[in-house]
Parts: sequence; structure tokens; C-alpha cells
Amino acid sequence: MNEAAFIAALRALATDPAARGLTDDAAVLAVGDTNLVLTHDMIVKGVHYLPNDPPADVAWKLVAVNLSDLAAKGARPVGALLGYALGGDSWDRAFVAGLATALAAFGLPLLGGDTVAMPAGAPRALGLTAIGEAGTEVPARGGAQAGDLLWVSGAIGDAGLGLELLREGRDAPAGPIERYRNPRPRLEAGQRLAPLVTAMMDVSDGLLIDAGRMAAASDAAVTIALDAAPLSPDYLDARGGTREARLAAVTAGDDYELLFAARPGDAAQILSLADEIGLPFSRIGRFESGDGLTLADAGGAVPLPPRLGFEHGG
Amino acid sequence: MNEAAFIAALRALATDPAARGLTDDAAVLAVGDTNLVLTHDMIVKGVHYLPNDPPADVAWKLVAVNLSDLAAKGARPVGALLGYALGGDSWDRAFVAGLATALAAFGLPLLGGDTVAMPAGAPRALGLTAIGEAGTEVPARGGAQAGDLLWVSGAIGDAGLGLELLREGRDAPAGPIERYRNPRPRLEAGQRLAPLVTAMMDVSDGLLIDAGRMAAASDAAVTIALDAAPLSPDYLDARGGTREARLAAVTAGDDYELLFAARPGDAAQILSLADEIGLPFSRIGRFESGDGLTLADAGGAVPLPPRLGFEHGG
Repeated sequence: MNEAAFIAALRALATDPAARGLTDDAAVLAVGDTNLVLTHDMIVKGVHYLPNDPPADVAWKLVAVNLSDLAAKGARPVGALLGYALGGDSWDRAFVAGLATALAAFGLPLLGGDTVAMPAGAPRALGLTAIGEAGTEVPARGGAQAGDLLWVSGAIGDAGLGLELLREGRDAPAGPIERYRNPRPRLEAGQRLAPLVTAMMDVSDGLLIDAGRMAAASDAAVTIALDAAPLSPDYLDARGGTREARLAAVTAGDDYELLFAARPGDAAQILSLADEIGLPFSRIGRFESGDGLTLADAGGAVPLPPRLGFEHGG
Repeated sequence: MNEAAFIAALRALATDPAARGLTDDAAVLAVGDTNLVLTHDMIVKGVHYLPNDPPADVAWKLVAVNLSDLAAKGARPVGALLGYALGGDSWDRAFVAGLATALAAFGLPLLGGDTVAMPAGAPRALGLTAIGEAGTEVPARGGAQAGDLLWVSGAIGDAGLGLELLREGRDAPAGPIERYRNPRPRLEAGQRLAPLVTAMMDVSDGLLIDAGRMAAASDAAVTIALDAAPLSPDYLDARGGTREARLAAVTAGDDYELLFAARPGDAAQILSLADEIGLPFSRIGRFESGDGLTLADAGGAVPLPPRLGFEHGG
């Protein structure tokens, strides 16, 4: 049974509306008058992090990727549960220190969890459940409508560049490596954007694949202007701004930026919010009726690359 | 860093009252007027289940051990998030089928989670987060007072017997193996008992070790009447009712029964509730001022066995 078949089988079980069909970043459970947002992400050594990544950064990343899912639903984090595979070594100690840093940075209460021993030699598997409280409107992936603009926060591609530099052991600027190891979930932006957007998700697997998912969930087509994808000065220095470099950025993943759709009439308010919170929001595309993902740049239509991002799910 | 030191380090971070100092079965988070109960347990192949345990039973157990924590807080399950390590094999399919059975049996909505690939050869690690809604009073482990009686639901020792029989590959009665593979979280009992008890927890690591934890959390001493520990007919058939057999039962773990303290004046109401729901509750001990755990039977004081249960935490 492959992952797609497995998830399809789970989806058939997840009939409660709070599950959102397992197609959203998180579950949204009404508890009294509160919309609770619940997410659980696992990371595995050698799969989701490099064996020599500093344990404190692994702790940060475990927290950050879960909080990014809350951010995409406009939620404020209220707690987390940790599932931890104990190594019985100094890695554990460094992990706790990093966890303390991450919890403090995000004001995230650690509420509970479980610690287990793994058999000798087994790779560590770590899980975190994050719980957040959202407003009355909780943006879904699937709310974009024809005519809406597609936006993305921050810059795209730095984390992928950082990972490549780390893998190659190359001398590298601090920015991209920091973006790979210590992603910043866009919590404030998510909470402020939630009332303004028609759809929102985070970019974890790659801008193109995630935009395609938003379009599919919205029963709409989306066209992306490759030239409009925001690249950082570090990225442009390292790879330039060619079509190839831009395609690498929009398929790299690990960005943990917010991808959102909004009515064109709300653009001024969105740009003013960007100024206010000091995080750029870039218009990168437009939804139309139909389906599928189309890419274009100043040179005209851009054929879709064979790989749009990671398929493993967010 | 060993497990105790690791958990102590986590405890220092878990300062939010909802965490209950990481000493309870679950976190209790107030959301509006609702007390939400949150728990996360992991199970690992070769550590928490036998490599040849049927995958459907592993799914059942993963759900049941988490719901047992909710039961101990008197909570009604409202949803679960699954963290699943995909094998890409027929085990996955059988697991999903078992998960469907367990979710249906407990009326538990699957709300979300994460599916990850593990490196080749790595043992499966599975996690479940269960969310429940409790009443206004959520029993803690630490509420027992001198004079309270100690009670336990159902029968003790069957799951441990079942595990032993499975490990030895011996012909075995179905009851103990069923108790090991398909524990029944005492959800109804927990919800009905919650207003009547001064402390409650589930028995996962062994009756003695868990009773000692309740006494320690309550700043009280507890004396247990070994003869009063409820043993099933299957258990008595297999091992007899000697002191040694009883000591094996109260240190075996995996019982997932409810252990609770109550004022003596509430005994009649508790016994009447047992009749009503068809689950026996047995008085097995008494709390006194002081600290520590004492054991006695008809033959007088019983020295504590060197091992009171599993130390790995619930």
C-alpha cells in the first residue's frame, strides 16, 4: 500500500466535518464557541532532518512546522504535546534546550506527551501535536474563487538553497541555512490575514505543488507569474534570477510561508497589513474557472517542471 | 540523559497549569467553558507491541491506550490525530482496517495527523493524540486524602498473562490474550465516576507502581490488600490465587483499568454504579497520612516485590 492509497483509506474514515476531509493543513474542531485548530506532524531522522543537524534546530523545526499549520488557519497557539523517542544520549539534552528556546520564542505552553525508548539503532521519530484557537472564520485550502489573486508571504526558495548548501558541505551565507533550520511560522500574519482571505495554507512542499493543491481544493484553475515569486537577495546572489533558478525556488519546499487567495478589491488592505507587520506579501498569480496549474514569465508560457515539489504531504 | 532526567527537564518547561506538571494521565485545557483533555501516546514495534501482533490489534491498542487516559479524566472522546510510519506493505492495509474497527467501536472521529516514510528497516513508530471533553470536575492523580478508599475496576493481571502466553507460544485461553491485544478503555465508567472520586488514573504500568504514583502525587500513604485485587477466573485457572500469583498480577501492567480514590461514605453509590454499568469496582486499599506503599494479605505484611511495574511511564 503506497502513501496515496493509505491516505485515501484514512480519508474514507475521516468523515467528521472537523477533519476537513484530511485535505487541509489542520483539523478545525468547534468546542463551545471556540474554533480549535489541531495539527500533528512527525519528523524522522534521515528523512525530515539531516543526521548532523544540531538537535536544538531539530526541536525548533518540529515546533515551527506544526505552528506553521496553525498560522495557515489564522490560529493562535495555545499548547503542544510532544512525542519523543529517547536516545539516552547527549542529543536528548541538546534537544530539550532547543525545545525550551522554541517554546519561549512562540509563547507555546508544553502540555504533555509521551517519551518512548526505540530499539537500538532505530532512527529517531519525533512528533508534535499543536493546538490553537482561531477566530470565527477559519480559512480553508479550498475557498479560492475565479478572479481571486494568489499571494505569498516572505521569500521563497531560501530553505531549499540552505539544504543544498548543507548537503554539499559548501561555505554558505547564514540566511538560507537559518531559513532551512529555523523556519519562522507566520503566526501574526496568519491571524491578521484570516478575515481577509478566501483560502490559505502554508508552503511546505513547494510553492507550485501547494498552489496546485489550493486550486484543486477550490475547484479552480490558477496561473502563476514565475517572475513574481519573491526571491531573497541571498537567493539571487547564489543562483541568479534565471528561469531555471526561479523554477528551483518554487519547487524546493520547506519555505513555511503563507500562500493565500483574496479578492482583488482587498489588495490595498493586504499591502497595508504587510507594511504594518513588516512582512512582504507578493501577488504571484490569479485564479480562473477551470482546473490545473499554469506557469508564465516575461518570456511567455513556462512548461511545468516534471517535479512540482515534495509529494509526501505536509 | 536517561528517561527520568529527560522528563524532569521537560517538566521544568511545562509550567502551564493545563500541563498538570506532566504528572497526570493527560493535559486539561480550559477552552471557553469546556475542559478539554488532551493526551498523546506512542507505540513502537518491538517495544510496545510484538512484531507478530496482528496489525489490526496494534491499531486497536494505539486507540485504546489513549482513550484509557481520557477515561481516567472522565472525558468523552471527541477526536484523534494519527501519526503513522508507513511501511508501504500489507501491514498498512490491515492497520487501517483495524483502525476503522476501533474508531467505530468508540465513536471516535479521526480528525487528522501525519503519515511519514521511515528509512528502510527502521521499526514502526506510531502515535495518537486523543482529545476529549470532560465535565466541570476533572479528577487528578493527586487528590486522594487520608481515609479515602482505593478502588480498581474490572480485573487485574489478565493482559500480563496474555502477553506471557503469547511470548511462550503456548496454547492459551482467549480471554487473557484478548485483554492484552484489545484492551477496553473504561470510558463510561470514567465519565460516571468522575464526580464521585477524589483521584483517578488508569492502570497501565502495573497496579502497584500506579497506586504508588497516586499516593505520591496525593502526598499520602496507601496500603493495599493483596487478597482484594480482583483476578479473573481465567487468571485463577492459569496461575492460581497464591501470593506469588497475586504479586504477578499487580505488577504486570497493560490492564487499562481505572484506579481511583473515594471517600468511604461514597462506597454505596460507587457499588450501585458498578451494578448499573455492569463493571465491577473492587475496594483494594486505603489512604493514610504519611507516604509510601504498603502491601498486606491474610498472612500479614507482604514485602514489596523488587519490581512494582514498568518504569517507562504511561
